[in-house]
Amino acid sequence: MRIFLSGFGTVGQGFAEVIKRRRDFFEDKYGEQPVVVGVIDSKTFAVDQKGLDLDRLVARKQEKKGVSDETYSDALAVMDSVKYDLLIEVSPTDVETGGTGLKTIRHALECGKDVITVNKGPLALHFHDLIALAKKNGCKFRFEGSVGGAMPIINLCHENLKGEKISSIRGIFNGTCNYILSKMDNGQPFEQALKEAQQLGYAETDPTNDVEGYDAATKVVILANSVFHRDVSFKDVKITGITGITPDAIAQAKSHNMVIRLVGEITETRLEVAPRLIPIGHPLSISGTLNIAQIDADLAGPITITGRGAGKIETASAILSDLIAIMSMRL
Amino acid sequence: MRIFLSGFGTVGQGFAEVIKRRRDFFEDKYGEQPVVVGVIDSKTFAVDQKGLDLDRLVARKQEKKGVSDETYSDALAVMDSVKYDLLIEVSPTDVETGGTGLKTIRHALECGKDVITVNKGPLALHFHDLIALAKKNGCKFRFEGSVGGAMPIINLCHENLKGEKISSIRGIFNGTCNYILSKMDNGQPFEQALKEAQQLGYAETDPTNDVEGYDAATKVVILANSVFHRDVSFKDVKITGITGITPDAIAQAKSHNMVIRLVGEITETRLEVAPRLIPIGHPLSISGTLNIAQIDADLAGPITITGRGAGKIETASAILSDLIAIMSMRL
Repeated sequence: MRIFLSGFGTVGQGFAEVIKRRRDFFEDKYGEQPVVVGVIDSKTFAVDQKGLDLDRLVARKQEKKGVSDETYSDALAVMDSVKYDLLIEVSPTDVETGGTGLKTIRHALECGKDVITVNKGPLALHFHDLIALAKKNGCKFRFEGSVGGAMPIINLCHENLKGEKISSIRGIFNGTCNYILSKMDNGQPFEQALKEAQQLGYAETDPTNDVEGYDAATKVVILANSVFHRDVSFKDVKITGITGITPDAIAQAKSHNMVIRLVGEITETRLEVAPRLIPIGHPLSISGTLNIAQIDADLAGPITITGRGAGKIETASAILSDLIAIMSMRL
Repeated sequence: MRIFLSGFGTVGQGFAEVIKRRRDFFEDKYGEQPVVVGVIDSKTFAVDQKGLDLDRLVARKQEKKGVSDETYSDALAVMDSVKYDLLIEVSPTDVETGGTGLKTIRHALECGKDVITVNKGPLALHFHDLIALAKKNGCKFRFEGSVGGAMPIINLCHENLKGEKISSIRGIFNGTCNYILSKMDNGQPFEQALKEAQQLGYAETDPTNDVEGYDAATKVVILANSVFHRDVSFKDVKITGITGITPDAIAQAKSHNMVIRLVGEITETRLEVAPRLIPIGHPLSISGTLNIAQIDADLAGPITITGRGAGKIETASAILSDLIAIMSMRL
C-alpha cells in the first residue's frame, strides 16, 4: 500500500506517528507496511518511491517548517511524479472553495486512486460529485475523521447500521463549544471560558468558526449528505452559535436542572445547529471536549456514540480505521 | 442468499419480520432477496428449497406452537436436506452444554456455510474452537447480537476499532438488572422492582440468570474471547449479582450523589461482574433497560456506545447487520 499524504500539520504528523506505532499490527495482519511515497504541505514536498522516512520528515518540519527545501507550484504534478495507491488528504479545511484538498482528492479519484480524508471543506461543498467520481472510477472514498474525530459515527452509520432507516441524528459536534459551555455551567462568563479554551489549545486565536457554530454546521452537512443521502450545503443549515449565551441564561437553565449545549440536528427535513436546553443526566448533557451523537434507527432503536472530537492522535486513529478497512478489502 | 434458520422463538420471528421490512433494501442493494429455505424450532421443522413463506410460519407458530406438524429427531439431518449458504442460529441459550446451537453451528461450519448467531451458549463455551473451524473452512462467523442486542459493540471493536489496542471494556450488559436498579433508585425494594420487571416482560419467571449476574458474565466471556483474544470461560469470571442490594445501600449511594449499577469489566487480567457505585452523570449511570459499553482504546481514547440490549426487532436488527456485512462481502 503506497500512500501519498497531502497535508503535514498536526493530523498528518499524527498519522505518521500512528502508522509507526502499528508496525507490528500491519506486519501481522497484512504482511506489509503501508509506505508513504510522497508528502506535501502548503509549500514544500518530499517524494521517494521506496518510501519516505517519516520520523525525519516530522523532525524537519518541526525544526524548519516545510518537509524539505523543495517547493512546488503544482500539487498535482508532485502527485503524478510518484506511483501511489491511496491519497490521504489532511490539508487545512477551506469551506469557501474546498482549497488544495478539493483539487488533490479530485485528481486522485480521476486517476483511480483510493482516498481517505478528514478535510471537511471538499466534503461539505462537493460531496455528491466526489462520491460519483469515486464510484465511476472504482475507488474507495472514506472520511471517518471528518465528523467527530475519533468518534466512529460515519462508518457506524454506513456499515454497522447500513440496513437501518435513520430518521434523525442529534449530537454535539464541536468540542470547543462544549468545553466553553461546560465551564459556563460553573459560573464562568463566556469570554473567560473562551480564553481558557484558547490557552489550552482547544480554541483558535480567531474562534469564530467554532463559537458561531460554523464548524458544527459543516459536520451537519456532511452527515446529511452521507448518512441521509440529502444534497445540501452549508447555506441550508440554520445556525445559531453560543456567543449570545449569558451567565444568566446558564443560571436559569441550572435552576431547572438543565444545561445549555450546542446541538446539531439532522433529519429528512431539518438541518440546524443551535444552543439547546438539555436535562442534566441526558446523554447530550456531557461536559468537556467530547463529541456525542444520538442516532435514531427504525429497527435498532436509539444508539448513542461518544468519543474524542479532536486531537492529533485521535483524528489520526480515524484515518487508521479507514486505512485498515481499505487494506482488508484488498486482501 | 439461502438461509437456514435454527430457532423460531422471539428472535427468529423478529428476523422474519425484519427481512420482510427490508425487501426494498435488498432488492435495491443486492438485486435479490435473502430466502429462508429451512426453519427448525425445538421440535418441528419446515423446509422448501424455493423459499418458505415466513408470514405463514409465524402465524402457524403463534397459533399452534411448532412451525409445522412435522417433527424431527436429528436437526443436522434437516439441515442437510436443503441447500443453504448461511445458518442463522437463534435457538435458546444453553450455557451448560451449548445445546442445539452448538451442534448446528459446528455442523454448518464443517459444511463450509457462513454462520450468524446471537446464541450466547456456544460462544461462551467454545469460542476459539468455533473461530478456528470457521477459519479452516473459509466461513464467515458473526455474532453481533450476542452481546448488547442492538448495541453494535462486537463489530465496532472488530472492524471500526480493529487497529486499536483496547485495554478495557466496562459496561452494563444486562438490561433487566439495570431496570431493577433504576427502580430501586426511586425507593422501590428489590422484590417489588423485580416483580414489575417480570410483569413488563423484562425478567423471566425464574430471574436467576439475570439477577445473579450470570447473563452479564456470559457477555463478559464473549467480549474477553473475541475482543481481547483471551481464552476464558464462565468459571473465570468473578460474579456478584444484585440480590443482596438493599434499599439502605441505594439510599447511602444517593446521599453521595451516586447510583448502584451492575457493571461488567474486561481487561487483559480481569473479568468481573459486580454492583458498582457510579457517580450520577457518569455515562454508566444510565437508567432503564439500555445497555452501554465504555471502550478504552490506545489511539482513539475512550469510546462509549449505548443501545437497546434486548427486544425482538432490536436483536433481529443485529442479525440484519451481520447479514448485510456477509452479503456485501459476496458482491
